[in-house]
Amino acid sequence: MAGWQEALECQARTRAKAGLTRTLRHRAPDDSVVDLAGNDYLGLAVHPEVIAASVRALQAYGLGATGSRLVRGSTDAHADLETELAGWLGAERALVYSSGYLANLGAVRALAGPGTLLVSDRYNHASLIDGCRGSGAEVVVAPHADPAALAAILGAHPGRAKVFVTESVFSVDGDLAPLAELHAVTSAHDTLLLVDDAHAIGILGRHGSGGVAAAGLAGLADVVVTATLSKSLGGAGGVIAGPAALIRHLVDTGRTFIYDTAPPPAVVAGVHAALRITRAADDRRAVLADRGRLTARRLTAAGFTVPTPAAGVLSVPAPGPEAALSWAADCRDRGIAVGCFRPPSTPDGSSRLRLTLNAGISQQDFDRALDVIVECAP
Amino acid sequence: MAGWQEALECQARTRAKAGLTRTLRHRAPDDSVVDLAGNDYLGLAVHPEVIAASVRALQAYGLGATGSRLVRGSTDAHADLETELAGWLGAERALVYSSGYLANLGAVRALAGPGTLLVSDRYNHASLIDGCRGSGAEVVVAPHADPAALAAILGAHPGRAKVFVTESVFSVDGDLAPLAELHAVTSAHDTLLLVDDAHAIGILGRHGSGGVAAAGLAGLADVVVTATLSKSLGGAGGVIAGPAALIRHLVDTGRTFIYDTAPPPAVVAGVHAALRITRAADDRRAVLADRGRLTARRLTAAGFTVPTPAAGVLSVPAPGPEAALSWAADCRDRGIAVGCFRPPSTPDGSSRLRLTLNAGISQQDFDRALDVIVECAP
Ligand SMILES: Cc1ncc(COP(=O)(O)O)c(C=O)c1O
Ligand SMILES: Cc1ncc(COP(=O)(O)O)c(C=O)c1O
Repeated sequence: MAGWQEALECQARTRAKAGLTRTLRHRAPDDSVVDLAGNDYLGLAVHPEVIAASVRALQAYGLGATGSRLVRGSTDAHADLETELAGWLGAERALVYSSGYLANLGAVRALAGPGTLLVSDRYNHASLIDGCRGSGAEVVVAPHADPAALAAILGAHPGRAKVFVTESVFSVDGDLAPLAELHAVTSAHDTLLLVDDAHAIGILGRHGSGGVAAAGLAGLADVVVTATLSKSLGGAGGVIAGPAALIRHLVDTGRTFIYDTAPPPAVVAGVHAALRITRAADDRRAVLADRGRLTARRLTAAGFTVPTPAAGVLSVPAPGPEAALSWAADCRDRGIAVGCFRPPSTPDGSSRLRLTLNAGISQQDFDRALDVIVECAP
Repeated sequence: MAGWQEALECQARTRAKAGLTRTLRHRAPDDSVVDLAGNDYLGLAVHPEVIAASVRALQAYGLGATGSRLVRGSTDAHADLETELAGWLGAERALVYSSGYLANLGAVRALAGPGTLLVSDRYNHASLIDGCRGSGAEVVVAPHADPAALAAILGAHPGRAKVFVTESVFSVDGDLAPLAELHAVTSAHDTLLLVDDAHAIGILGRHGSGGVAAAGLAGLADVVVTATLSKSLGGAGGVIAGPAALIRHLVDTGRTFIYDTAPPPAVVAGVHAALRITRAADDRRAVLADRGRLTARRLTAAGFTVPTPAAGVLSVPAPGPEAALSWAADCRDRGIAVGCFRPPSTPDGSSRLRLTLNAGISQQDFDRALDVIVECAP
């Protein structure tokens, strides 16, 4: 074995000792597990209209987009989805990416460069952190969801180009950033606000238009939104929504847009069908909210510290990485899938179960899932 | 309009003056253009078996993977494709990503970090360049496809961890790196070789197993391969193929793997069907090679400097960005899609048409396309 492989294996042994090995488990089509781990919050990934729209696009366009959006990859399906996304999110324009990860890299780089002060919430997603690192800007990590701390940081840099980057609903703990207060601070300090709305679109706001819209910030000239199409919208891909000038800039210069194959028309068309359903899905959103309250009540009664989730994500503390792993494994053995988050995937270095709510499963299955989680607790 | 938007608009005006504005054009399902611009080299994006496999997976799994591979996103479809990709590419294991872009970011970061000397071919793809920049390693840009220059760079850093990164078939000019010679140099200097085989898999090597395999380097302990599933394989997504120790490392620590939603099962299953067809597609590969020779002959006879392409990509010099743009537009008006590459998308800052060959179009359409390209030349 070559030396570099031995070095990797040595690191692997260190991770194994710390209980931090990850195992890929593959699900079969007929997997009957109750899903409290995925991000298909509204249950739309399996909606018949979504599948049908995707099948139609497959037959119309073929599988791959066959090129970058600027070469051969752009289809009417892409343009139509972008028009509807912009309208839904209340932005001038929207641009679709092949993943939320690449959308975030593209957004941060478009807004910040050498000379910019880039302030990033401490609990931000890996894609935002990578975007900050790759931007060449000076990066300051801000305390989590803390408008006063943000004001202090921004106030120390008058006259400088500044961007603040945050999620709306955070991906591990599921708490909602105080977006209106944060925007009051950024606008008072001439700072652009970039919000990753990945876990709030489809759930918060009128017609599920997201956390930014719910906070009254949609379409403002100093707010840019990114999101993924892989969670509530049941598909894959990412989006940047903002002023037309930004979208033009991304089309002309954005590396993760220009040099990446366009997402498949069939995925884009399926997401578009999911978006139409989402706008009208107040019933599903009501189910989700009920399940959030129920989960918090049930787990609090069982002795855990679990606030009512702002949207569809919440997390339950575990004593350590190995305890989290065996807790999740015991749940899985009893037919319940839950997320097991250990360092470095948890913002504060602790280990926990991450539960995601799904409006698409039956109430009976959902109730049983909560029972199992409590019964398997370490 | 906010100040930052005005700054973007001002940059846009500068680009417009230099002829560097990009325009998104969307194609309809019934678009009858002859495609010499996309990357569907073998014509598999529209193959009935590919569509059928994708439809079956849509019906079996739904649209989105609903989560990261490590949470809920991994299906049997992903595992099956990875097994077959590893066998085909002659690697111990393979790991699928949602794009070639994220695969490249992940591969470079896994192999290089602070302390590593990262040597990168001058013409490398944006995703490799971004991977180098984000790695924290010292990056040296090497002259294009030049084993002697590489030897000089590596020889100046004995005893240091070193990685050399190159494409096999380069994405704009379509030339093939001298992989065997480059590997002789890297192995003599204890250096890892990372090859992006995006434009060679499906075309070069036995059963289309790629440029690395064609050079006799498949499965070597000091060679790692990345590729995209969006070109010859007609779908979307990326792959890293290499020793099991590397794949384990990526599953445990790779940010662009762990923190990204898995590619949709339907895309993965469609790509898998395309891969099975590809392995047996010597007929399509023969058509492609014929078309490469024909194109070089025809364009050389018309006075252009166009070598016979190594695989399915070639480029034709244009006098400048505006001339390239109007050349491509004139071709499009006559029903032929060609790529128009201008700075910063061309490695040497010149402008050109990029032609991609496609075994899926009729010989008559292909011949007409070459006529149109010559007739529209500036
Ligand atoms: C907050 C957040 N942003 C971005 C992403 C990345 O989106 P994608 O999976 O589409 O790459 C994720 C998760 O996947 C996320 O949770
Ligand atoms: C050489 C090369 N590497 C990587 C990529 C990126 O792959 P993907 O489009 O799947 O992101 C491309 C083009 O798209 C490419 O040409």
